Amino acid sequence: MTFANVATLDSAPGRRDDLVALLTRPSDALEALGCLAYEVGVNAEEPDTVFVLELWTSAEAHRASLQRPEVRDSIAAARPLLSGGSGGLRFDVVGSPLRE
Amino acid sequence: MTFANVATLDSAPGRRDDLVALLTRPSDALEALGCLAYEVGVNAEEPDTVFVLELWTSAEAHRASLQRPEVRDSIAAARPLLSGGSGGLRFDVVGSPLRE
Repeated sequence: MTFANVATLDSAPGRRDDLVALLTRPSDALEALGCLAYEVGVNAEEPDTVFVLELWTSAEAHRASLQRPEVRDSIAAARPLLSGGSGGLRFDVVGSPLRE
Repeated sequence: MTFANVATLDSAPGRRDDLVALLTRPSDALEALGCLAYEVGVNAEEPDTVFVLELWTSAEAHRASLQRPEVRDSIAAARPLLSGGSGGLRFDVVGSPLRE
């Protein structure tokens, strides 16, 4: 069942765009791990926040990805760019009006 | 610029699945209006909440869609299924590690 993970990450002051650059670095691994979509964004009204929207083939695929060395390296690289604030939501996709 | 809208809708008691059914009714109109993705979901830990994740060709396309008769009809049909609680976030997509 497709799994959605949406997160907000508060950046350290002035580091939002560095965080965006890190999170959007091309990755050959993600698709093979079951990542269907990974969209990174910003909102002018929240200038120290980075938004991440992910779709995965399953919750298990998402969870397993967090244990992969390349993903752990990326999380470690992001740490100095974060202020510690975060939020988000997760859900199991049950349908779409764009599909029968 | 691709625009993301993520919303949580609290359903009236016992109406979550009716709300899911309404939101996942196949729509020919959405794609033509600029909707790139529209995923509807649930989370067992929040049994009265429906999650919606949308990607649009632009914030303007999303905003314009809300004025279309078919979308307004759908919003009106959803109203009796809602408890009034809602949340969400919006952002402009600036990149993805899945694309160069």
